[in-house]
Amino acid sequence: MTLSPRQVRVIGIGTGSPAHVTGQAVEAMRECDVFLVADKGEVKDELVAVRRAICEELLDEGSFRIVEVPDPERGPDAERDKAAYRSGVDAWHAARADRYAEIIEALPEGETVGFLVWGDPAFYDSTIRIVDAIRTRIPLDVRVVAGISAIQVLAAEHRIVLNGIGQPVHVTTGRRLLDEWSPQLGTVVVMLDGHLTCRELVSRDPGIVIHWGAYLGLPQQVLRSGRLADVIDEIARLRAGLREEHGWVMDTYALTVPSAPPRA
Amino acid sequence: MTLSPRQVRVIGIGTGSPAHVTGQAVEAMRECDVFLVADKGEVKDELVAVRRAICEELLDEGSFRIVEVPDPERGPDAERDKAAYRSGVDAWHAARADRYAEIIEALPEGETVGFLVWGDPAFYDSTIRIVDAIRTRIPLDVRVVAGISAIQVLAAEHRIVLNGIGQPVHVTTGRRLLDEWSPQLGTVVVMLDGHLTCRELVSRDPGIVIHWGAYLGLPQQVLRSGRLADVIDEIARLRAGLREEHGWVMDTYALTVPSAPPRA
Ligand SMILES: C[S@@+](CC[C@H](N)C(=O)[O-])C[C@H]1O[C@@H](n2cnc3c(N)ncnc32)[C@H](O)[C@@H]1O
Ligand SMILES: C[S@@+](CC[C@H](N)C(=O)[O-])C[C@H]1O[C@@H](n2cnc3c(N)ncnc32)[C@H](O)[C@@H]1O
Repeated sequence: MTLSPRQVRVIGIGTGSPAHVTGQAVEAMRECDVFLVADKGEVKDELVAVRRAICEELLDEGSFRIVEVPDPERGPDAERDKAAYRSGVDAWHAARADRYAEIIEALPEGETVGFLVWGDPAFYDSTIRIVDAIRTRIPLDVRVVAGISAIQVLAAEHRIVLNGIGQPVHVTTGRRLLDEWSPQLGTVVVMLDGHLTCRELVSRDPGIVIHWGAYLGLPQQVLRSGRLADVIDEIARLRAGLREEHGWVMDTYALTVPSAPPRA
Repeated sequence: MTLSPRQVRVIGIGTGSPAHVTGQAVEAMRECDVFLVADKGEVKDELVAVRRAICEELLDEGSFRIVEVPDPERGPDAERDKAAYRSGVDAWHAARADRYAEIIEALPEGETVGFLVWGDPAFYDSTIRIVDAIRTRIPLDVRVVAGISAIQVLAAEHRIVLNGIGQPVHVTTGRRLLDEWSPQLGTVVVMLDGHLTCRELVSRDPGIVIHWGAYLGLPQQVLRSGRLADVIDEIARLRAGLREEHGWVMDTYALTVPSAPPRA
């Protein structure tokens, strides 16, 4: 007997509002019998709750299960030892893929597995890599459905186009921002920045404009924009206060230099 | 009597499939009485037809009107004279904003105006700029709703994450690609490239991998991927054939250098 490959759906759900979900994503969600949700044991409980709320709003009661998958222990810290970090991350990824493969194999045959991805699976999300790793262990048939990314909610809520006319858009992380920064990159969108690293750019480029947003798409959404030099202190205070109030904060921002000379 | 500002919705509809439309976008579409659609007089008729089909599928019959707005004459060609091009573009934008302002002012008071934007309004789309220009002429109250961009459909259909782990993503145009190309940019997504400019990169960087897609999200969708050096000829032939067959082609692609050394 040959087992047919397990059906898997990787579904972008937007950034927390059920209204972000596309028709295609709802359809894919309906195909799923069970959703696997990583339990990161952090203050991210609220994000698991948001996923559950989205399923409850968009799907029929009793038509799906949600299974939380505890993340394995993390390896060494990146700041301390780079080589150990890399091999630690690899081992951690392998342990995680093993765990998912076991759980999926134990599911009744014919059940379809869904992964609900925050935002869009294409941006700074590990789900597709996890699924690729699981696929080296057990046969999977994977479909991916795009979702609205925090990048896009940021732009929509600020009513801005990300690119200057004919200019590029660069998406990067807080960790890389200072190394990479150049007005030639076009609009620079920064994700995964726990420290508002952009503050360091004020002295380098006084013309920079920031469009910042926290909890984008969620009821507690907050927006600020202006010349970076003028608004960074207020944003930093606001961010610290929000983090205290809610226990967690997710924010992203776009940097532009309105006066940047066209390069070509 | 003070007129209250005209309600305007700029709504991203994804790349042609009604299944790309989010719940929020459908809600915003329902608020609209009239959709203004630029008539570019090109072979883009099919794209107007797609918008119409999306409205017909998602909205109640008779609950909306679609008005085609002919684009003013274009200015001089960019290739010939750069300064004339810039001022020509400015004059053209002004003429276009005037035309839209007139049409909107002539609408019955209280009607809400919708712009249906291909993909996401945040990426290489002029609608938000047009609306900003109209707003300098008549008072508008504008809301923007994000949509699934061709960039995201490309990634989802190829089942790839755009960023390498912790690495950036750069989105640019065919015109800028050769000036900008560097493996340090991370994954480079190219839009608005009528010439598969990436062919010129084969000699510069033999390791480049391409993920290419045409008519993404539409019934005639085509995907190809592989080492750029290996697949560029096939993609070029395919693209020329499709263009002939359908009368138009829209494609986009992502370039990665799998072996790129981590920079930081
Ligand atoms: C692990 S990445 C996931 C991104 C996600 N896949 C997407 O497409 O939006 C998490 C980062 O995305 C950004 N982010 C995600 N959701 C957000 C939200 N609701 N508001 C602001 N930023 C958000 C933050 O920069 C955060 O550090
Ligand atoms: C004027 S831009 C608009 C982009 C749009 N706002 C978006 O978010 O996808 C047009 C370019 O987008 C890309 N594009 C748009 N729709 C596409 C599709 N269905 N398939 C492939 N590429 C597409 C092509 O590169 C095309 O040259």
